[in-house]
Amino acid sequence: MIMSKKHNFGAGPCILPQEVFKQAAEAVLDYNGLSILEVSHRSADFVRDMEETRNLVKKALNVPEGYTVLFLQGGASLGFLITAMNMCRDNKRAAYIDTGAWSTKAIKEGKNAGLEIDVVGSSEDKNFNYIPKNLNLNGSYDYLHFTSNNTIFGTQFKDFPAFDGPLVCDMSSDIFSRPINVADFDLIYAGAQKNLGPAGATLYIVKEELIGKSPLSIPTYLDLNTHFKKDSMFNTPPVFSVYTSMLNLKHLIANGGVDAIAAKNRAKADLLYGEIDTNPLFEGTAAKEDRSDMNVTFTLTNEALKDEFDQMWNDAGIVGLKGHRSVGGYRASMYNALEIDSVKVLTELMQEFATKKA
Amino acid sequence: MIMSKKHNFGAGPCILPQEVFKQAAEAVLDYNGLSILEVSHRSADFVRDMEETRNLVKKALNVPEGYTVLFLQGGASLGFLITAMNMCRDNKRAAYIDTGAWSTKAIKEGKNAGLEIDVVGSSEDKNFNYIPKNLNLNGSYDYLHFTSNNTIFGTQFKDFPAFDGPLVCDMSSDIFSRPINVADFDLIYAGAQKNLGPAGATLYIVKEELIGKSPLSIPTYLDLNTHFKKDSMFNTPPVFSVYTSMLNLKHLIANGGVDAIAAKNRAKADLLYGEIDTNPLFEGTAAKEDRSDMNVTFTLTNEALKDEFDQMWNDAGIVGLKGHRSVGGYRASMYNALEIDSVKVLTELMQEFATKKA
Repeated sequence: MIMSKKHNFGAGPCILPQEVFKQAAEAVLDYNGLSILEVSHRSADFVRDMEETRNLVKKALNVPEGYTVLFLQGGASLGFLITAMNMCRDNKRAAYIDTGAWSTKAIKEGKNAGLEIDVVGSSEDKNFNYIPKNLNLNGSYDYLHFTSNNTIFGTQFKDFPAFDGPLVCDMSSDIFSRPINVADFDLIYAGAQKNLGPAGATLYIVKEELIGKSPLSIPTYLDLNTHFKKDSMFNTPPVFSVYTSMLNLKHLIANGGVDAIAAKNRAKADLLYGEIDTNPLFEGTAAKEDRSDMNVTFTLTNEALKDEFDQMWNDAGIVGLKGHRSVGGYRASMYNALEIDSVKVLTELMQEFATKKA
Repeated sequence: MIMSKKHNFGAGPCILPQEVFKQAAEAVLDYNGLSILEVSHRSADFVRDMEETRNLVKKALNVPEGYTVLFLQGGASLGFLITAMNMCRDNKRAAYIDTGAWSTKAIKEGKNAGLEIDVVGSSEDKNFNYIPKNLNLNGSYDYLHFTSNNTIFGTQFKDFPAFDGPLVCDMSSDIFSRPINVADFDLIYAGAQKNLGPAGATLYIVKEELIGKSPLSIPTYLDLNTHFKKDSMFNTPPVFSVYTSMLNLKHLIANGGVDAIAAKNRAKADLLYGEIDTNPLFEGTAAKEDRSDMNVTFTLTNEALKDEFDQMWNDAGIVGLKGHRSVGGYRASMYNALEIDSVKVLTELMQEFATKKA
């Protein structure tokens, strides 16, 4: 078996545990005598595994009673619309915190769903390099929406916003990376392709009593009630993405769950941010107190060194380090499955570079 | 490597070529040094493969100039809504042919999109066991919609409806099974999980000049123009489903393309329908001239023999033969990758059963 020998710092779809890749590949060849790719989603085997996957999500996050777990398709991009349509109430007005690209898209779809959207906090004034903390919650809002982690700008909510009403969160890029209190939320949604599984599945964790309460006329697929009533099997689900998510959740839980992975993620983040803060050739772009443990954004203090540094990390087998064009520089995404050894390869290389240039 | 030893007559997700399963499993372990499950959709490698997949669709179906190929998510179930929203014009009225379950759902979503829907042909009077041929096209319609193959009822359009306006077709269950003249259509859509690839991707083949012409305000993800402008990479696509579709299209083309597979499919259908028509223990449920080459529906002439027959095919390693509850009896789905040897196992077993009961 050939395993990845590269250090994958890509922003997503991203690295998953090597053991999960191995098990997923095996299921493509043999899943109870068939390939997982040819198995009916109505077969007893897959119905059991879909149920198991939903239960493992609950187990991993300590999801309390009264919440359901659903797998849909379309990513957070369709989720922006689905959440707005389903969380709309009589005010037809919602509060959104704008922390950059993904929040901005969510705001646009909230409006496309027919809601009036108030941006109650924004960090646009500083190219989204921090998390807005003082919110202007001066209206009657159906819900408050925010993006827990911002892959492009490298910021992350450490404390979640206080709001006296339904709280909706796009948790695509940091769900399962740290403990959360699901009871604080009314709807969490997340594309699978960071810490859950392969692209193609989208997770929804929803307070059941909120389902089916929107005054909007919602098309069938976009109505969470459709999927809730059918145990997430309204139509053919993305079978392989769900199955591989199950493998990954089992791996997560067997290795200590979100508490253990949060400690590991913290150690990786401390290592890299420590290097950035002490190495004269680099500087971080996000406000220190809002720095993401998942996506570390940084730049060279001297842009003239770019080609040389790029050559170094390319030669070291590092991939996916190029920053997003809206921030420039570098972005080291360190999702759950990235080993600290890969981070060490990067930090040692940064040190070596500094020594060379001293 | 363990390969499937069962005869998979399942209605979908369904069998794909064993070689494709093997190549897909290999890519889960190694796709240019990474797993295909962790590769960025923005990487040069995957951008190239997405483009290649779109081109292979064009090659396999001889798609003429002026059409684009897109991969979305959500299956035909979301496609029902997307097509109605995008094909809507000033009449806000469309004609639909109702050939059962999937057409019925398409009609519902056409209404949910805000259109007036005229059912211009229906076979509901005979539990959808035939294809309506005389259509009541007495209105100004934005488009005519039909379902080319009806998995549940075992019927299939052999000749496509004549209509002096845009023709829209849900081809989920028979695309790539036979030659079609794409120029006759304005929009074709299909869930991947029959003859294309694993569940999770949805194919759209659209006449480019029709994109962006709807008077409706369409949310971003549901607007085909969003995906067209971004070369089908607006958001993270279902990477693995698209990649495996690429493998499967290469396999199809290397083995003679849709002409060759149509001949193979015809031979399988002739074999099984021939057995059904001559064996006193069985009878077909669909009108003979409208019988599907993909999904063969049949029942026992004596229901008392059910348990015995079920035991026989189960013992023979046949899976997925149970009929849909709306028709009862049996459904043998014989998608592209099902070998004629598997059909022979079934027909010989039916003969053996008849001999035993004679």
